Order: sequence, then C-alpha cells, then structure tokens
Amino acid sequence: MREALADLPHEALVLAACSGGADSLALAAALGFVAPRMGLRAGLLTVDHQLQPGSAERAQQVVNQAARLGLHPAEVLTVTVGTEGGPEAAAREARYAALAAAADRLRAAAVLLGHTRDDQAETVLLGLARGSGLRSLSGMAAQAGRYRRPFLDLSRATTVAACRALGLTPWDDPHNEDPRYTRVRVRQKVLPVLEQELGPGVAEALARTARMAREDADALDEWTESAYQDCALSDIDGAITLAVKKLENLPDAVRRRVLRRAAIAAGSPSGALSATHVLAVDRLVTRWRGQKAVDLPGGLSATRRYGNLILAISPHA
Amino acid sequence: MREALADLPHEALVLAACSGGADSLALAAALGFVAPRMGLRAGLLTVDHQLQPGSAERAQQVVNQAARLGLHPAEVLTVTVGTEGGPEAAAREARYAALAAAADRLRAAAVLLGHTRDDQAETVLLGLARGSGLRSLSGMAAQAGRYRRPFLDLSRATTVAACRALGLTPWDDPHNEDPRYTRVRVRQKVLPVLEQELGPGVAEALARTARMAREDADALDEWTESAYQDCALSDIDGAITLAVKKLENLPDAVRRRVLRRAAIAAGSPSGALSATHVLAVDRLVTRWRGQKAVDLPGGLSATRRYGNLILAISPHA
Repeated sequence: MREALADLPHEALVLAACSGGADSLALAAALGFVAPRMGLRAGLLTVDHQLQPGSAERAQQVVNQAARLGLHPAEVLTVTVGTEGGPEAAAREARYAALAAAADRLRAAAVLLGHTRDDQAETVLLGLARGSGLRSLSGMAAQAGRYRRPFLDLSRATTVAACRALGLTPWDDPHNEDPRYTRVRVRQKVLPVLEQELGPGVAEALARTARMAREDADALDEWTESAYQDCALSDIDGAITLAVKKLENLPDAVRRRVLRRAAIAAGSPSGALSATHVLAVDRLVTRWRGQKAVDLPGGLSATRRYGNLILAISPHA
Repeated sequence: MREALADLPHEALVLAACSGGADSLALAAALGFVAPRMGLRAGLLTVDHQLQPGSAERAQQVVNQAARLGLHPAEVLTVTVGTEGGPEAAAREARYAALAAAADRLRAAAVLLGHTRDDQAETVLLGLARGSGLRSLSGMAAQAGRYRRPFLDLSRATTVAACRALGLTPWDDPHNEDPRYTRVRVRQKVLPVLEQELGPGVAEALARTARMAREDADALDEWTESAYQDCALSDIDGAITLAVKKLENLPDAVRRRVLRRAAIAAGSPSGALSATHVLAVDRLVTRWRGQKAVDLPGGLSATRRYGNLILAISPHA
C-alpha cells in the first residue's frame, strides 16, 4: 500500500472503491491506516448497483464502517445498470462511470481497487481461453490512469485473514458464487484443478505471466508506433500508404501490429478487425504473387501497388 | 504436409520420426503419400528406448509397416536412456541424439515430428504453470533446424481418425497414460476441465497463443540484440561495461532482457540466473541510490560506477 501511494503529493485524496467483500474491505482498512501516516487523505466509495434486494442497505452498511477505518468522505454511488454487452460488462461500465464521476467531483488523486493475485490469475486464464495474444494475457494493470491496484500481488486468502484479524465482517456477493459467470467457473473449477495437478504456485505463476506480458506488450507497442511512423509514406483523406520495402524488414510480430495499426488509422473498426484480416493483408507484403485487394471491416480495402501498400475506403464500398 | 515440405530440394530425403502412436503413424502415412508427388524421398526412424519389455519387437513392428507406407529407408534406433534430469528428460535427450545422428548418417534434409495441436496446448499450459515468461508460452516451433512439425495445427483426434481411415493400428504407449507425468495430468485432467468450463476451442486458443508468443519473443530478442550492441561500451576479459544512459531509454521488457544477455555474456550460467537476479541489477539502473554491488551466479557481480554498469567476476569471488 505504501509503495502504491508513494508518488502522491501531500494532502492528496485517495479513495478506496469498496464493495464490502473481503478484498476491498481489507483495502479500505489498509488505506485508512496508511494514508494519515503518509500525509494523505483517505475516503471510500461504494457502488449500489440496484441489482439485488437490500443492496441499498448493504451499501449503507459499507459506508457506516468507513468512519471507524479512518475514511472520510464515504459515499454510496447509486447506479442503474443497463444491458449492453451482457450483465457483467454492463455492471462494470456503470460502476466505473460512477467511480470516475465521484473521483472528479471530490478531486481525488487516485481510486484504489481491491483486485488480488487471484483475480489476476482468473483474468489471465480468461485471456488465454480467447487466444488473442499478448495483450489479453497481460491481465489488469497495477496502475492505469487514476486507478491503482495495491493488492495485485496479494492472495485473496490474505485479505480474508486481514479482515478476520481486524474484526471486520466482509459481505460475500452471491454473484461471486454464480456459476453462470465464466469468471466464477474459472475460480471454482479451473484454478483448483490447475493447482492440484500442476502445483500450488499456479496463481502466482499466472500473475507473474501477466506482469511480464504487459511489459512485453508495451515494448512491442512502442516499436510498432515508431515502425509505423517510419513506414507510413502518406495519410491523405484517410488513405494510408505504407512502404513495402520497409515493412519487409520488420519481424513478423511488429509488421503485423503495424498493419493492424494502419488499418485502424484508415478507419477499420478495431473490434471487427480480426487476426485473419491482418494476416491476409500481411500476405500482400510477404507472399506477393499479384493477389487482388483484401477487404477489411469498415468498407476498407488493402491494395499493393508499385511497392506500396494502400489502405483506403474501397472504391466499390 | 505439402506446405511443410515446400522448400526442400528435389530428391531430398525426409524422415518421419515414428513411435507407432496415432500422431506419428498418421505423420508417416502422410509423408509416404506426399513425398513421391513432390519429388522427395521419404524414410522412417523409430526409437527403441529399451524401457519396457517387448520394446524391441514393437519398434520392429513399426519398421515393418514402413514399406507399405512407401517409406524407405526405415530403421530402428536403439538407445540407452540415462537418468539425468528425470526419466522424461533423459528419454528425450537420448531420442533426439539418436535421431540427429541417424539424420546425419542418412543425409536427411528434414526430420518430421508428429506433435499435434493438443501437444502444443499441453506445452503452453506447462510453460504457463512455470510463469517464466513469453518464451515458455511459445511452445514448440513448427520448424527448428532439421526438425519440422507439420501436424502442429491438427488435433490429435484428426490423427486418430486418419489412422482408422487408412486401416493403420496405432500403438498406445502406456507412458502416455501414466499420471505420474505432469504432462499426462495436463492432458487427462486440466485440458478437459478447461474445455468444459471455458468452451471447446481452448486447445486451439492455446496453440494460437503459442504461435503469437513465439513471434513476439523473436521480435523482442531481435530488439534486445541490437540494444545490447548499442549499450555495450566494452567487453574486456569478460568484464562487460554498459552505458546506463542508454539502458534508461529502453522499455522495461527490453532493458531487462539486455541485462540478462549481458550477465550471460559475462559468464553467469543462464540456468542459474533468475528473474530476481535480473531485477536486482535493473534497480542499479532505474532506482539508483548508491546501492552496493549485486552478486550474480557464477561468481559475478554487477556494479554501477560513474554512469556505467559493469558486469564482471567479483574481486572477492
């Protein structure tokens, strides 16, 4: 916790996002203890998603514990959860919007989230099951914008023990036990089997993988950006022209990222642009035998012409 | 198979390494079918590890099927398996040594291995459980030196079906069912749970992860090598001096790889050099507050002095 807050200026306000579960209750307690010793102010936010009966009372109970933990201000943020993207995604969207608005209003320097190493391990396994590459293996960041996750290296068991030692009674969200959620099945079924068959260090190994994958992905993104700037000959009215000769000199991993980057810059929607699309464009560079244009999402096409690769709105779109 | 052999010269000899199991029996059959149509010669090697009673007879049975599959020469390679590194590692060592020697003697252009997408998925999960980074997630290469794995994108079920369709009777190695082996437990317990809880595409997603991780790791290695050349000021009697100013400009993932590369070049044994060692050296670069030298395996130490990082045999070693 001290390390996670070390860079904040004197008297800055730090808010713990607290659901009342063991992870975020321990987080709130740790913040309440550490903040005054570091010359920081500490508060608490809890979100009432209005999805379960009694949620308003429960949110109020979380806030009621705040004073005892040394947290002020302490607020309930009441949100209305939509349906877009499924129940988990919609609840997350509403929650983060409310946290961001409250942080702005209270002029908070940071919002702390209680995700643990176990959450991180689950996230990595979910990313692995998608098979969509390094970024999806890199889990959650220890720090991203205003959000910080000081417990990302701690186990869930540690937060449960901390609550017990402090005499705090966490509230167990029944959603965290509902096997209709993939994440819950990963927690209840997949991780225990991995630990049993591969050894007890699996969650730690997955969290370590996430950290390294994030650094690796950041480095490759940096290379991709400078390679893109180097390869891009022109960007006129959204038509992007890249020099094939320069693309050819890049390693596969970077060249494909540059092509993806260029397609998005030319207007292809990133959500719809698959690895298969990028590979088809890549073959215009690396396996050139006079193929015709490659169609891309967003009405774009990729064409090779006179040693240039041109990504632009398709003339017949 | 055709794609895997497309670059080989006319009349080149290609050998299938065949245990008699479904994967490598289907591999041998596919090679026997394709090779003559591509102007290539095809042969078969099978290894008798002498670890189970009747292994010599079984190896002979594999060779006896070769003529029918159009494979010539077909040889049993009899090896004596040591004990170093455990039974799996020792058997692998003996097997690859015998395959390499036979390939040299027969002047083979390539040796084909029957690993499937399922083997690849198992390898990725084993690497993930180690948590040792991108390289350990990248599984087996489709091509590495003389070895090629044409079936790396096929499922094991496909090879079983192919054997059935061709009237071939695979031999099931009892070692492949022995739950004392971690890999067997991954196959029998871990992957089925992943498929059940996360969806049937998990093996494919893991294989896709491996392919992308390999490309990403190759690209980062390329960057590391050129960054190392750029940062290394001198290499005198194994004492390597790096410019801290240049190291500071590298992204974390590359800088740490450069430091690892430099420590190994200075004589630290790569097997003993852990991520923790590298991170301690890294702090001499990124969190400099006058720390003392960092000890590294092999009697080395890393010292920061006047803006240089020096990796050398420790004076008191």
